[in-house]
Amino acid sequence: MLIIGERINSSRKSIAGAIASGDRAFIQQEAKLQAEAGADYIDVNAAACLGEEIEKLKWLIEAVQEATELPLCIDSPDYKAIRAVLPMLKTAPMINSITLEPERLEGVLAAAVEYKAKVIGLCQSEDVIAETAEAKVDLAGQLIEAVKAAGLSLDDLYIDPLVYPLGVNATSAQAALEAIERIMKEFPGVHTTCGLTNVSHGLPARKLVNRTFLTACIVRGLDSAIMDPTDKLLYSALKAAVLIAGNDYFCMEFIQAFRAGRIE
Amino acid sequence: MLIIGERINSSRKSIAGAIASGDRAFIQQEAKLQAEAGADYIDVNAAACLGEEIEKLKWLIEAVQEATELPLCIDSPDYKAIRAVLPMLKTAPMINSITLEPERLEGVLAAAVEYKAKVIGLCQSEDVIAETAEAKVDLAGQLIEAVKAAGLSLDDLYIDPLVYPLGVNATSAQAALEAIERIMKEFPGVHTTCGLTNVSHGLPARKLVNRTFLTACIVRGLDSAIMDPTDKLLYSALKAAVLIAGNDYFCMEFIQAFRAGRIE
Repeated sequence: MLIIGERINSSRKSIAGAIASGDRAFIQQEAKLQAEAGADYIDVNAAACLGEEIEKLKWLIEAVQEATELPLCIDSPDYKAIRAVLPMLKTAPMINSITLEPERLEGVLAAAVEYKAKVIGLCQSEDVIAETAEAKVDLAGQLIEAVKAAGLSLDDLYIDPLVYPLGVNATSAQAALEAIERIMKEFPGVHTTCGLTNVSHGLPARKLVNRTFLTACIVRGLDSAIMDPTDKLLYSALKAAVLIAGNDYFCMEFIQAFRAGRIE
Repeated sequence: MLIIGERINSSRKSIAGAIASGDRAFIQQEAKLQAEAGADYIDVNAAACLGEEIEKLKWLIEAVQEATELPLCIDSPDYKAIRAVLPMLKTAPMINSITLEPERLEGVLAAAVEYKAKVIGLCQSEDVIAETAEAKVDLAGQLIEAVKAAGLSLDDLYIDPLVYPLGVNATSAQAALEAIERIMKEFPGVHTTCGLTNVSHGLPARKLVNRTFLTACIVRGLDSAIMDPTDKLLYSALKAAVLIAGNDYFCMEFIQAFRAGRIE
């Protein structure tokens, strides 16, 4: 399981505040906490800083690279912002994200090849909201074609099937789960990842719902997640799910995490 | 999800103590707690009372039937004990359990037909320990044939694929999960149930592992569980898993459980 630590996101109040006040120590602490909690990549997002996203994203990257040697996951809806910051990175990053929207797709893929970056691909096009597993797998196939055509390997692609709120459609989680299982089976070598929080939008006990969804995703084949590794119950659910899925030989990862005090 | 409350089991020290001392009030309190927590059946087991199982099982049944109107699940490895107590039951019970061992199978099925009982069938024969999904599904098919031949309907059968400890075989949970999915697809109308605790034998954080396994089972199609409904985290995981599995329309069951204070 590859964990992309999601905490340094300008949509969170505390992060927006730290960006606005230039509180470098706070950002660095957020990076360190996630690194210690098991993150493999640190996501950085300044998209809420309208009009100054590029400048703020550069500041975030500089701060985080001083605090940890982990690779970063550059998170922006604007491919120009992504391209602008790639030359700064000390380690090959991940890019969050591409969709099938042609300009963004081409803009990001060319940069990904140049900087040997991994890419998160969302099952989303300009005109399709993929609500069914069928539609999600279809878009995944198109993403895979585009990535291959650009010269990246399947191992560099993390497909996010996108999950929609259960409050709107009771089968939305099931559609994402089925898509994960089919994508992992039908396109050997590709990875899947998923943002978790959308599933519980509008529901009570959201963390429980997100945790349960992550468990279900892992049991269906998910091999990466965009999440907060410092959420101990969530991290515990992840480790237990990997165990249940049969991917923790001799239960060693789980037992080690328990001994390290990371399991609650 | 049909919940079989497992607490009144003589393998638990407190229950064995209450049976030994004739503490009827304690047993009745255990029954009431489970009924309030959402149990659909109350399991009663006196199998640890060697030499006096039938007498103690009768005492348990009498006590529980005074305390709740819920149907009981008669839990014994000895089909003679099961047959001996069936005439006492006020409501059609469940029987826990049959295997493919011929004497037990025939003895229980004849009684089940006579008393309109539902039956839990374990994927276990005299000479096969079914470790793979394939072997479990094969035994499930044999159980189904036997149940049909005896004149019960598939709707009366709850198949337990049996899960073995992950500490012994890292893919044991995965085998049970695959069996659940295949049994539910290949034999429409049948039910599946599962005891949870075996999966975590010898591991730390057992409750987390059991909870995670239950979540995975439900997402793969499980529609009943033998469990402790008073374990709030376990019950919460169950409700969230039903939601994620797409079986809670408009999320009403989950929201109601939350409002009733049952979700943690």
